[in-house]
Amino acid sequence: MDAYTPTTRSKVKRLHERAKYDRDSVFAILDASILCHVGYVIEGQPYVTATAFWREGGTLYWHGSAASRMLRTVEKGVPVCFTASLLDGLVLARSGFHSSMNYRSVTAFGTAHALKGEREKDKALLAFSEKLHPGRWDEIRPSTSQELKGTTVVAMEIEEAVAKARSGPPNDDEEDYAMDVWAGVIPVRTVIGAPEDDPRLKPGIAAPDYLKRIRIG
Amino acid sequence: MDAYTPTTRSKVKRLHERAKYDRDSVFAILDASILCHVGYVIEGQPYVTATAFWREGGTLYWHGSAASRMLRTVEKGVPVCFTASLLDGLVLARSGFHSSMNYRSVTAFGTAHALKGEREKDKALLAFSEKLHPGRWDEIRPSTSQELKGTTVVAMEIEEAVAKARSGPPNDDEEDYAMDVWAGVIPVRTVIGAPEDDPRLKPGIAAPDYLKRIRIG
Repeated sequence: MDAYTPTTRSKVKRLHERAKYDRDSVFAILDASILCHVGYVIEGQPYVTATAFWREGGTLYWHGSAASRMLRTVEKGVPVCFTASLLDGLVLARSGFHSSMNYRSVTAFGTAHALKGEREKDKALLAFSEKLHPGRWDEIRPSTSQELKGTTVVAMEIEEAVAKARSGPPNDDEEDYAMDVWAGVIPVRTVIGAPEDDPRLKPGIAAPDYLKRIRIG
Repeated sequence: MDAYTPTTRSKVKRLHERAKYDRDSVFAILDASILCHVGYVIEGQPYVTATAFWREGGTLYWHGSAASRMLRTVEKGVPVCFTASLLDGLVLARSGFHSSMNYRSVTAFGTAHALKGEREKDKALLAFSEKLHPGRWDEIRPSTSQELKGTTVVAMEIEEAVAKARSGPPNDDEEDYAMDVWAGVIPVRTVIGAPEDDPRLKPGIAAPDYLKRIRIG
């Protein structure tokens, strides 16, 4: 199956030309992101928690302390709305109405479950590390049994998802193009800065090459 | 009142040293953000929608098409969880367990209502424009009555809110500092690029000065 089948949860009605349901479009935006927002409900109250995530195939993973309210809730298998959003620019049109933002976002729906066992958790955390900075996992201290016990890793198979994006210049009303006002796009970019050494870094340890290959956005 | 009073919704138990409830801390993060994630519930299903927002005093505003499912839902006064998050860096510790992210985030709770009347909406949209690029509102075409009718602007007074942030180098286990592995922070920054002229920009119109003062992040 190359595309998700939208139900009323994910089917975009308004500006539907901005929506795509194929896996390639969804995965491309997910893979450019590291931060997601996880939405869940406790006794009718919505909660939205920002957290790091990673993807393998059609499954999304995130993790944290076993004491986290968010993780203790979603691991029960309650409905989850997962959103990853990247802001790409401000679109300054010749009217407020047509002013907009360039962005890429994915909204995915599903239910999550906690990975069982230390080995399964460790393997998932390895995948996260390898996605971000391949090779680093072998250099750092292995997780202890106690650390893995205190860590919850959840997996959510994507049941349905939609990718939404806007790009390009403003779409102004035809008569407004004659106005004497600047219009265009102010790009917004996520930039990775130069590595900052830990003040307690052992002397003589250089920043590894994999740091140069970290990409977000 | 200088601080929000947390209930179980916003009280941070784990890593509580990262949490602040005072308005200055909350407002500073909100004012550095333009994108938020709005969480709401329809028939038990959580939804999270990314959208632009702005703040006036202790009230948050966002807007969009009157046909938007998110706006049609939240304007009814249902419980909303509002989150704004800024990623500041990847924290590469000497173990996976202590690896982390530097970030700033606000989670706010409340109920929203729709602004009534074209004048009230237009005044709110003016405030949004002035926050982003002071002076531009006077240059662009005024909103038409039909545009304002088709736009919903909602306001949500913050009932309670928490600001959470992490900054600085890794906090490794004492014995791990002796390891021969690089550790430190990979900064992640939001950068505003050079303005891109609309391809249909009228000849002779220069980019206005207020574009240089746009700040996000």
